[in-house]
Amino acid sequence: MTLRFGLIGTGRIGQVHAANIAAADDTELAWIADPFMDGASRVAARFGGTVTADPEELLTSGEVDAVLVASPTPTHIDLIARAVQLGLPVLCEKPIDLDIRRVDALRETVRAADVPVALGFNRRFDPAFASVRARVEAGEIGNLEQLTIISRDPAAPPASYISVSGGIFRDMTIHDFDMARFFLPDIVEVSATGTAAFDAGAREHGDFDTAVVTLRSSSGAIVTIINSRHSAVGYDQRLEAFGARGALSVVNAPTSLVSLSTADAVEAKPPYQDFFLERYAQAYVDELHEFVKLVRGETAASPGFEDGRAALVLADAAQRSATERVAIRVDLRK
Amino acid sequence: MTLRFGLIGTGRIGQVHAANIAAADDTELAWIADPFMDGASRVAARFGGTVTADPEELLTSGEVDAVLVASPTPTHIDLIARAVQLGLPVLCEKPIDLDIRRVDALRETVRAADVPVALGFNRRFDPAFASVRARVEAGEIGNLEQLTIISRDPAAPPASYISVSGGIFRDMTIHDFDMARFFLPDIVEVSATGTAAFDAGAREHGDFDTAVVTLRSSSGAIVTIINSRHSAVGYDQRLEAFGARGALSVVNAPTSLVSLSTADAVEAKPPYQDFFLERYAQAYVDELHEFVKLVRGETAASPGFEDGRAALVLADAAQRSATERVAIRVDLRK
Amino acid sequence: MTLRFGLIGTGRIGQVHAANIAAADDTELAWIADPFMDGASRVAARFGGTVTADPEELLTSGEVDAVLVASPTPTHIDLIARAVQLGLPVLCEKPIDLDIRRVDALRETVRAADVPVALGFNRRFDPAFASVRARVEAGEIGNLEQLTIISRDPAAPPASYISVSGGIFRDMTIHDFDMARFFLPDIVEVSATGTAAFDAGAREHGDFDTAVVTLRSSSGAIVTIINSRHSAVGYDQRLEAFGARGALSVVNAPTSLVSLSTADAVEAKPPYQDFFLERYAQAYVDELHEFVKLVRGETAASPGFEDGRAALVLADAAQRSATERVAIRVDLRK
Amino acid sequence: MTLRFGLIGTGRIGQVHAANIAAADDTELAWIADPFMDGASRVAARFGGTVTADPEELLTSGEVDAVLVASPTPTHIDLIARAVQLGLPVLCEKPIDLDIRRVDALRETVRAADVPVALGFNRRFDPAFASVRARVEAGEIGNLEQLTIISRDPAAPPASYISVSGGIFRDMTIHDFDMARFFLPDIVEVSATGTAAFDAGAREHGDFDTAVVTLRSSSGAIVTIINSRHSAVGYDQRLEAFGARGALSVVNAPTSLVSLSTADAVEAKPPYQDFFLERYAQAYVDELHEFVKLVRGETAASPGFEDGRAALVLADAAQRSATERVAIRVDLRK
Repeated sequence: MTLRFGLIGTGRIGQVHAANIAAADDTELAWIADPFMDGASRVAARFGGTVTADPEELLTSGEVDAVLVASPTPTHIDLIARAVQLGLPVLCEKPIDLDIRRVDALRETVRAADVPVALGFNRRFDPAFASVRARVEAGEIGNLEQLTIISRDPAAPPASYISVSGGIFRDMTIHDFDMARFFLPDIVEVSATGTAAFDAGAREHGDFDTAVVTLRSSSGAIVTIINSRHSAVGYDQRLEAFGARGALSVVNAPTSLVSLSTADAVEAKPPYQDFFLERYAQAYVDELHEFVKLVRGETAASPGFEDGRAALVLADAAQRSATERVAIRVDLRK
Repeated sequence: MTLRFGLIGTGRIGQVHAANIAAADDTELAWIADPFMDGASRVAARFGGTVTADPEELLTSGEVDAVLVASPTPTHIDLIARAVQLGLPVLCEKPIDLDIRRVDALRETVRAADVPVALGFNRRFDPAFASVRARVEAGEIGNLEQLTIISRDPAAPPASYISVSGGIFRDMTIHDFDMARFFLPDIVEVSATGTAAFDAGAREHGDFDTAVVTLRSSSGAIVTIINSRHSAVGYDQRLEAFGARGALSVVNAPTSLVSLSTADAVEAKPPYQDFFLERYAQAYVDELHEFVKLVRGETAASPGFEDGRAALVLADAAQRSATERVAIRVDLRK
Repeated sequence: MTLRFGLIGTGRIGQVHAANIAAADDTELAWIADPFMDGASRVAARFGGTVTADPEELLTSGEVDAVLVASPTPTHIDLIARAVQLGLPVLCEKPIDLDIRRVDALRETVRAADVPVALGFNRRFDPAFASVRARVEAGEIGNLEQLTIISRDPAAPPASYISVSGGIFRDMTIHDFDMARFFLPDIVEVSATGTAAFDAGAREHGDFDTAVVTLRSSSGAIVTIINSRHSAVGYDQRLEAFGARGALSVVNAPTSLVSLSTADAVEAKPPYQDFFLERYAQAYVDELHEFVKLVRGETAASPGFEDGRAALVLADAAQRSATERVAIRVDLRK
Repeated sequence: MTLRFGLIGTGRIGQVHAANIAAADDTELAWIADPFMDGASRVAARFGGTVTADPEELLTSGEVDAVLVASPTPTHIDLIARAVQLGLPVLCEKPIDLDIRRVDALRETVRAADVPVALGFNRRFDPAFASVRARVEAGEIGNLEQLTIISRDPAAPPASYISVSGGIFRDMTIHDFDMARFFLPDIVEVSATGTAAFDAGAREHGDFDTAVVTLRSSSGAIVTIINSRHSAVGYDQRLEAFGARGALSVVNAPTSLVSLSTADAVEAKPPYQDFFLERYAQAYVDELHEFVKLVRGETAASPGFEDGRAALVLADAAQRSATERVAIRVDLRK
């Protein structure tokens, strides 16, 4: 049976979800909500669906089986709460919110409700990362001792964005915190170091553009996250899982199979992909597919509300650690 | 304006074209012909289109603007002839035919007609090969002196197929002959060496499963084609353009960004893609797109009837060379 | 003119220096001191030199122009002091000592004396690291923002060694601290996280076998050092200098140009070199060569006493940080 | 016991052998002959040995146990003949001669004599090629079906050299013919294609600067050799052994572990080594070592007179094939 989706938010990432919902055999774009009606209409023209400016109308239409929340972060909490209240499964883009108190206020409601709530940590669905995780779980490299994540965006966002982003840890590292927890769910300590090495916007708003975070897992493993808000070579997304018997590595995705060799340099390849929409195109497809299975009770694999909350707890701890220059203990099991 | 396609043949490759025609914004699958009506109906159910067992009905329906011929090789000549007669542009899968006399018999008709006829040498549209060719043309490596093509299929076809294939040169190397001519159109000499190193079917039918072909271009460049009917590591499709100032290389497409390092071996990657439908998926899309532009008079880039004929002339010469053990001169400009 | 060397200590690393001194055109192995006379005699038989059990005899022989100290760490301080007193240039293996108070007690003497004292941080002379540093200095990647050092030994030392090693930071990371300062001399803060993930010896002696250290430079750059006492794939020595305009990377040294591709895995290479004597063979040669130039007043490039002290200050800070779970500020300019 | 060497010829390659003979523990440079006495004296000053202008004096000195012939090609035949007559083992640089009739005239003498005669096909001793061959022999990739050798020199020699070189096949491809026979000794057919694509000297003297040779083995395997007299990226020496169960590949030797990534290109490495003295430095050492073992009766692994002859037979066949445009059958077992 086709799952009818209500999509809330038609920005860059909303459009990706719209296309994927329309393309899959077992999903359908039924309703689209966005106060910017032009955006909603454009998406509807392309992929179908009834358009509204008001999410409430979508949620109570009786014509959607699941909700995809891709609207601005400050709206997430209320939309999740309302969807859960109506018994509608939700796939919500990360982060849940920038304020842990607001997240905690919703926590019991979500826990109590018998409705699937999934968080859009799309990188878990990337075929490379998913494969490494499965192979680590299968014991291919023995006990996991170190996880190294290099994650650099192509270019720093405008200062106006920085000012409302919640800072690099809540805005950008949040993905890496979840990736760390994909391998090592029970993180117990966070140490972070940040600088504003190049970006005037970061400096102006007391934010960092360059950061390194070290996490300790209750298993004794150490995670290292290396971040930068810019990368001249393109989107830099690498990972190394280092275990007792070997290592599994994910390199950057090549944009071409072609290399050039001359008297100046050999085997030179073109720069990496520009950004996440290309690098994680397949991950978004697989994420949607997994969410459909979750709604149907066929899997429990999707990252959920608790994962979204845990990533925010780690981001908050990193922010404190980077400011107060101490390691911060956390208890994600509470 | 949408280009209405008539698709003839709904086998493996016909289905790829059907999907691409249905997916593109400016094309539509209007008619589908296949004597195996079940196949045609399945494709129509998925991608639309009126179904018939008889290509003539499709060609004369008045409802198709262009014809895509993906039926068995022996039908190509007649279908091209009829389409051209009706003024319908054709994109025909390779080869035109296995018999150069039949091709030559059609040659004047095609030349005289003012109808675009394109040949499905899809590899020209592969982003990697197309990029190397463009960069060679742009002079990035200076004068092209050597072209090396390694082209190995994953596994030998059944003996029953070998017997009607026309032999390795007409069936498999034909793609590499066209790739050679993509870079160096004016080939003047062909030398070929073949053996049946492993395949009982090839041996039984006097065919080769392993072959090396050397081509000389009128420009003085030498092309080397290295073929095998099997490859334990997967579909092996590499190319090196070697010029006076450097080289441009195409490596095999990785199937994953993951590598494994252990005490036994480091940086070990998963085997290559299985076969051409995956390796050249994008090429088929771009090939269709380019054909649409050709029909609209916006480009002349597609390989055409003369390219299909030239590849067959080279295949025939290779067959003779491999048998008679002499180099064979050819004149493709005649 | 030939520089006559007195070598003190004929263990594993002393033997490397003996061979290099004997092989170079402008150096000569004149005296060899080791209380284990058998070792000294074996070295003398191979590379020449007068043998003694007593370093004092070597130092006061009047037949040596420079001293190479490769004896156990606790002897370094006194040997450096005595050599400097006698006006003899010294190349001393790292570390100067495990106790910063003893190092500081010698500091003024070394500063005041007009005798070259070089520290054996051999990795600075590795052609790959030296090249990256020169290219960074030349501005090839713009302002250096992040330095990532992965440094893993093949296998953990015996528990007996762990107990006298001074701990992972003073024993193993000390090289990485110096490498960090090779690029960014003015480190102002140290954060460290360690665990005993696999080694019973480390656990028993309250040491770590796995550690991550983050350093901040006064320039605003961040250094990440990732350590493990073992590595199934062999000696793991990588570095990435990440700058505003690009990155320079050092990969592990291949032990062979051969790779294997099969149906299981493609491009699989043999494991990395076993350990530092092989990986840094050329570095030891170049280190000696540079020291000779230093003695001759032709360069000031060698790492010296202050570099040895700085590395120990960073190691001490890392130890405190890893224990007390706070970032430690340091002032290397004092 | 130390093997006393007489070295005849002190050019570029003679000096390499002199250094290796002097450096090994079990060999000694006893006599050096070269009509250019200056060269001989310089080598003697560095590595020891008595100097003469006349090889006969060296051969009959009674002070040499083995002879290393590194003099110009036209002198090889007579020197081998005389050494064999005197019962002195010989390691002779390739080729034996450019004229097969002169080689054949010596053949019976060498066969009849009970004196080891080794040919300087140094590439057999390269650790990478030797390892691939050992692994192929061990069955690691199953039956060997194709061998591909890419062999390009950095730059074309002067026209004056071309005129006396015997042509590209006898001068340059000769190494590749022997490499082919290292894997597949019984070559039965040769096809060659050559052009003068860029070098005026080659054109002037009727030689080729660019060539492709195809060999057939009695086992049914096909060898492809791809040659060029120049290569902008440096010395290009690659090999792929392709078998029923996989492939073993040798890539070019990197000159550095460093790669550069910028917005223009990623993972760009420095050009390859300049030429054979660097690329095959270890091979020359191992070749000498193996020859010493041969003299001592401990191995029969070195390529010998028959291998030198076989390579020349293949070169002659290639020359005929490239000229007459036919495949040439050869019988190396006769």
